[in-house]
Amino acid sequence: MKNIGIGLAGFGTVGAGVYENLERHRDLIAERSGYVFDVRRIVVRNPQKTRDVVAPAALFSNRWQDLLEDSEIKVVVELMGGTSEAYDLTVAAIKSGRIVVTGNKALLAERGAEIFAMACEHKVPVFFEAAVAGGIPIIQSLRDAFVGNRIESVHGILNGTSNYILTRMQEAGLDYPEALAEAVKLGYAEADPTLDINGWDAGHKAIILAALAYGFWVDPATIRVEGIDRVSAADIHFAKSLGYCIKLLGSIRENSGMVEVGVAPTLIPLGNVLASVNGVFNAVAVRGDLVGDSLFYGRGAGRGPTSTSVIGDLVEAAHGLNAARQTYGFASHSLYGSSRPASEIVGSYYLRLSVDDKPGVLARIAGVLGEAGIGISSVVQPESIAGVETPLVLMIHEATYGAMCAAIAKISALNCVKGEPLLFNVEALS
Amino acid sequence: MKNIGIGLAGFGTVGAGVYENLERHRDLIAERSGYVFDVRRIVVRNPQKTRDVVAPAALFSNRWQDLLEDSEIKVVVELMGGTSEAYDLTVAAIKSGRIVVTGNKALLAERGAEIFAMACEHKVPVFFEAAVAGGIPIIQSLRDAFVGNRIESVHGILNGTSNYILTRMQEAGLDYPEALAEAVKLGYAEADPTLDINGWDAGHKAIILAALAYGFWVDPATIRVEGIDRVSAADIHFAKSLGYCIKLLGSIRENSGMVEVGVAPTLIPLGNVLASVNGVFNAVAVRGDLVGDSLFYGRGAGRGPTSTSVIGDLVEAAHGLNAARQTYGFASHSLYGSSRPASEIVGSYYLRLSVDDKPGVLARIAGVLGEAGIGISSVVQPESIAGVETPLVLMIHEATYGAMCAAIAKISALNCVKGEPLLFNVEALS
Repeated sequence: MKNIGIGLAGFGTVGAGVYENLERHRDLIAERSGYVFDVRRIVVRNPQKTRDVVAPAALFSNRWQDLLEDSEIKVVVELMGGTSEAYDLTVAAIKSGRIVVTGNKALLAERGAEIFAMACEHKVPVFFEAAVAGGIPIIQSLRDAFVGNRIESVHGILNGTSNYILTRMQEAGLDYPEALAEAVKLGYAEADPTLDINGWDAGHKAIILAALAYGFWVDPATIRVEGIDRVSAADIHFAKSLGYCIKLLGSIRENSGMVEVGVAPTLIPLGNVLASVNGVFNAVAVRGDLVGDSLFYGRGAGRGPTSTSVIGDLVEAAHGLNAARQTYGFASHSLYGSSRPASEIVGSYYLRLSVDDKPGVLARIAGVLGEAGIGISSVVQPESIAGVETPLVLMIHEATYGAMCAAIAKISALNCVKGEPLLFNVEALS
Repeated sequence: MKNIGIGLAGFGTVGAGVYENLERHRDLIAERSGYVFDVRRIVVRNPQKTRDVVAPAALFSNRWQDLLEDSEIKVVVELMGGTSEAYDLTVAAIKSGRIVVTGNKALLAERGAEIFAMACEHKVPVFFEAAVAGGIPIIQSLRDAFVGNRIESVHGILNGTSNYILTRMQEAGLDYPEALAEAVKLGYAEADPTLDINGWDAGHKAIILAALAYGFWVDPATIRVEGIDRVSAADIHFAKSLGYCIKLLGSIRENSGMVEVGVAPTLIPLGNVLASVNGVFNAVAVRGDLVGDSLFYGRGAGRGPTSTSVIGDLVEAAHGLNAARQTYGFASHSLYGSSRPASEIVGSYYLRLSVDDKPGVLARIAGVLGEAGIGISSVVQPESIAGVETPLVLMIHEATYGAMCAAIAKISALNCVKGEPLLFNVEALS
């Protein structure tokens, strides 16, 4: 048995969970891994605050530098969130030779290239299983288990809050505001659920998955990220009648040598296994050239699942403490060149409009699309339902997102079109 | 970049796949892992045989000892199968300090305790991702990712051939012999599919999963393993009308401090996600005290999926080549004590009989069960259908398997009961 000193930055849901579960399962972890983890210091903003998980007062500090001043701390666990102090700590930890375990998806998505360049330079690994999909070991699986595969695509339901809201809209017919209020009430959404709702929580995770699959960090500014706040009960109803459900889907794929990444509300066939991923659960479908189709499913957030991933990373960190390594948690390479800008990505779409109930309307809309070279694969004019008067649904088979946006701007300006057109993705996933 | 010499024992579907894919994805693997794997020797029974994957003739040998006589071979990949020569090679490799990567489920299930005791003694890891569920990284996930969890249960669809047969019976209404013939024709079943059909392929895998979850090797002689050869189209039909489908399910759980392991045809609710795992796919559902419910799904066999797992293990082996370790691929411990003999495991059951169509029959059968203290939760007397005259289906809520077997022996002896009674498990999986 070997003792490993660790330092914890952050003592919120996840940080406190890691502390609590390292204590509770001390023997189990020691027997299964051969390591005992000693939390030697916990850094928080306010050490005096009363907390639901109790730890000795002497462990708390409000200076992250304390973690690095204790030479017995070999691994720094960064669960404070944010991208400024967390960045400073991560960089300082790497430079001081401490292995870093982090759950910080925003930090990695925004500055991953820089952080892993530093990790390589200082020969210090950074592990981040907790950053994507809670307790699902998707990082380890993509990076290690599938190391011998060309990854063809990764599709993920990556935000539990959004998925809970969409599930309730789908199953109970709730509209978006009601479902959101329910999610907040049940504690599934943060008091400020902005990043959940605007899609960027999933966007950060998609960037991380793309990095593992393709060896480089896609610039967040170049990808399309949309949240679920414009999905209405009416759209869920229309999608269902067409054989689809709507999920907030992260889509990552290689296409003609370029990598495509995006997050948007997406219609997926009701028969696909991702359509049955409900509530706060997450799932990631990976297609590799050798392994074929595989799927990972589990809880995407919460104290237990996320501390599961942190503890797994701690054991991996411990295994590698004094070993010579060839890679440091992420291997950068240039086999896939570059990423395709959002506007050039070809997709299929669900376009929903509200229109005047007059003859000739469809002809004018089809005319705009036709001029742009965009083909319509089907048109449905459903009955008006609550919130959507005279709806018109167009299914578009293949068009670039840029061409769609340009056409929609023109369609939106037609006087027979009311309100803002709505554009979601469609993925056959076959 | 670091070169790692490896030796390959076996050049069948998996062995040849490993060789082929290490060549094909040489650059990809090197960029993603930092290692280049050089196959320096391939051991086969007949080096002269023509093969579908071409490798230089000079690599082939029919002496496994050759692998150990080359000091540049650091990792031995055992894919020859069987439990005698494979055992000798594995032991000799460990003793010579070579890391072993194996896909040999029978060898581990039968002699895992001995092999890992030796691995610990010689401080040489043995990796075996390819031994269970093809390309699904369930070994790594149970062992590493969920190292901080008490594993409550593991349920798995672990044999693709059986699952293909059951799926065809379920979807196309085929009877067992037809579905088996189809599986053989499509190459999903071996020419001699004995271990697939009698349940022992899944049985070996269940023992391996139980070892990872609970830290010790359950004796194969003490567990119940039944194959799908007695499942009929009639049973699939009856199960469906009760809201279930029939899967060959490996069930592993901890119950009151004892570990329970078994494989049997099992009725699972149609709504459960495992019910939608069809064809040759495998899936493993893991419940941990922290992580909650999770599921892993993918191809359970075949060249691509299985060589995916071997290559993943090779990278793990390379990472750990010169590192000090605390564990060696499997950590033995005694936190869970022992396993419960099959006869003492409490389960729920589907009992199907053929009976005389006379009054009083049910009373006599219920009488035998009642005397044994076994309660019936429901009785269905479906219409006779092809192959099953006057069927009687009893759903039994909770009874030990031993009590069920004793009661069935008595029921079978009743003159109103025709043919052999059929007993499958029922798992609520909730």
